[in-house]
Amino acid sequence: MEFIYYIDLLGTMVFAISGAMAARRHNIDIFGAAFTGFVTAIGGGSLRDIFLNTRPVWVDDGAYLLAILTGVVVAIAFRNIWGKLARTLFLFDALGIGFFTVVGVQKSLEFESNSIAAVVLGMFSAVMGGVTRDTLMNETPLIFRKEIYATACLSGAVLFVVLDNFGVGYNVNALLSVSTVVIIRIVAVKYRLSLPIVGG
Amino acid sequence: MEFIYYIDLLGTMVFAISGAMAARRHNIDIFGAAFTGFVTAIGGGSLRDIFLNTRPVWVDDGAYLLAILTGVVVAIAFRNIWGKLARTLFLFDALGIGFFTVVGVQKSLEFESNSIAAVVLGMFSAVMGGVTRDTLMNETPLIFRKEIYATACLSGAVLFVVLDNFGVGYNVNALLSVSTVVIIRIVAVKYRLSLPIVGG
Amino acid sequence: MEFIYYIDLLGTMVFAISGAMAARRHNIDIFGAAFTGFVTAIGGGSLRDIFLNTRPVWVDDGAYLLAILTGVVVAIAFRNIWGKLARTLFLFDALGIGFFTVVGVQKSLEFESNSIAAVVLGMFSAVMGGVTRDTLMNETPLIFRKEIYATACLSGAVLFVVLDNFGVGYNVNALLSVSTVVIIRIVAVKYRLSLPIVGG
Repeated sequence: MEFIYYIDLLGTMVFAISGAMAARRHNIDIFGAAFTGFVTAIGGGSLRDIFLNTRPVWVDDGAYLLAILTGVVVAIAFRNIWGKLARTLFLFDALGIGFFTVVGVQKSLEFESNSIAAVVLGMFSAVMGGVTRDTLMNETPLIFRKEIYATACLSGAVLFVVLDNFGVGYNVNALLSVSTVVIIRIVAVKYRLSLPIVGG
Repeated sequence: MEFIYYIDLLGTMVFAISGAMAARRHNIDIFGAAFTGFVTAIGGGSLRDIFLNTRPVWVDDGAYLLAILTGVVVAIAFRNIWGKLARTLFLFDALGIGFFTVVGVQKSLEFESNSIAAVVLGMFSAVMGGVTRDTLMNETPLIFRKEIYATACLSGAVLFVVLDNFGVGYNVNALLSVSTVVIIRIVAVKYRLSLPIVGG
Repeated sequence: MEFIYYIDLLGTMVFAISGAMAARRHNIDIFGAAFTGFVTAIGGGSLRDIFLNTRPVWVDDGAYLLAILTGVVVAIAFRNIWGKLARTLFLFDALGIGFFTVVGVQKSLEFESNSIAAVVLGMFSAVMGGVTRDTLMNETPLIFRKEIYATACLSGAVLFVVLDNFGVGYNVNALLSVSTVVIIRIVAVKYRLSLPIVGG
């Protein structure tokens, strides 16, 4: 469990970095970068916790806010080298959304949501931070435009709930479900897969 | 009460259809259509429940998410015929916001909000799903631009609270209040009534 | 305490005025003006309370909604003279965000958030109403573009938490912290200070 806690903190920091980097494209100041880093890192999990009617974890545990602050400082200090790390960042992001999805589903089930809601809330945990960031930045959310992204989270979330119902233990289940998200993301980006557009 | 539950599910499905249809104008994919359908259907009631500090109903009852899924599938499958059903859809929407308003006021009063807050939360239940949808879609919310819409909900909500204070029973009260919303909407659209613009 | 309650109501009314005034630039109707007034006045404190998992105060106490209604009516009735009162309004706003910051930090500490979260939630109380207003209006939030604004709140919030840890009493602490916010705002605007932009 200790292990999961540190992964969660690490994931939060990675999301803060990606949020703060988004500021570059928008000519906003250092505070704005920190703010978007915070929103991106905290938005998905907080929305899940609000729907579960429980307090977001960062309100009680200051370590999360320190992780975000670290992420924002790192993002700003090394802002010139992120471009060269695009592939590494992509993998971190894929791992991050996979992990956040599984943690989100697990927490929702613990708080006795129904199975379908747990799937939705798991996906929300992973993607709603980015949606909030894009909305604040006055952009159409990336998840509406990007290669299969939220759908990867949805698949991992469904798998986790199904395996959980079959009695598969948490560790094995988490490994399989996170891997599913990561693999779908890699395949989708490599082969530029996307879902059909709704036209009419 | 059973009856109201099914009406609520039906209203949720209708809102999901209207949300998913909005995707057509934005070239977004099937997932995005489902996502906006979900947000439109669930947004208003969830915001009300969050303000009341209680869990949104869909977290506990999976039937709401199935109703939304059905609505999204119906919206996508029949996307070519909705244009011909504009008048029917308008009536459904008017009934939907009327009903959601009354359910919202009633629930807020049950959770012991003050009367004015119950009016606000009743209106929120009806319109905030659409506001969230428009905001995510990066548009100025329709309710700021459309013929008398939220104001119709507001009128119905005020009427419900007043009649409730005079001891009028729920069924009669709901009938009168929903009708008020529907009639105001029909008259507003037929005669293109709108509120004065704030200029200066 | 009675005194603080009335200040809080006054601050709410001032924020409602500033929110309703924003409607002028957007050709929206009277309802829209009232709606944005409401969101601006209530948004920050409500978000803080939702994160603290407690009910926003306006749900229980109708006086807040009456204060907002008054603010909206005043804003619309006197909409032609606000331009001449720009300096007065600026001072009101600086006082308002200072006060909302301190009340927000204090309430968060009372609800046993950690100190860093109390700082964040204090700032949120002051600025998130405006952020929500700008997002609904489909604009990039002002706090990303304006001279030192949220940072002034952040400074006041940090000072309050530090002095509180040193055992300084509430009244003295509030006076010093609110003054800090107001002075930073005045200096920032007078000398057009702003934070560095994140480029790269």
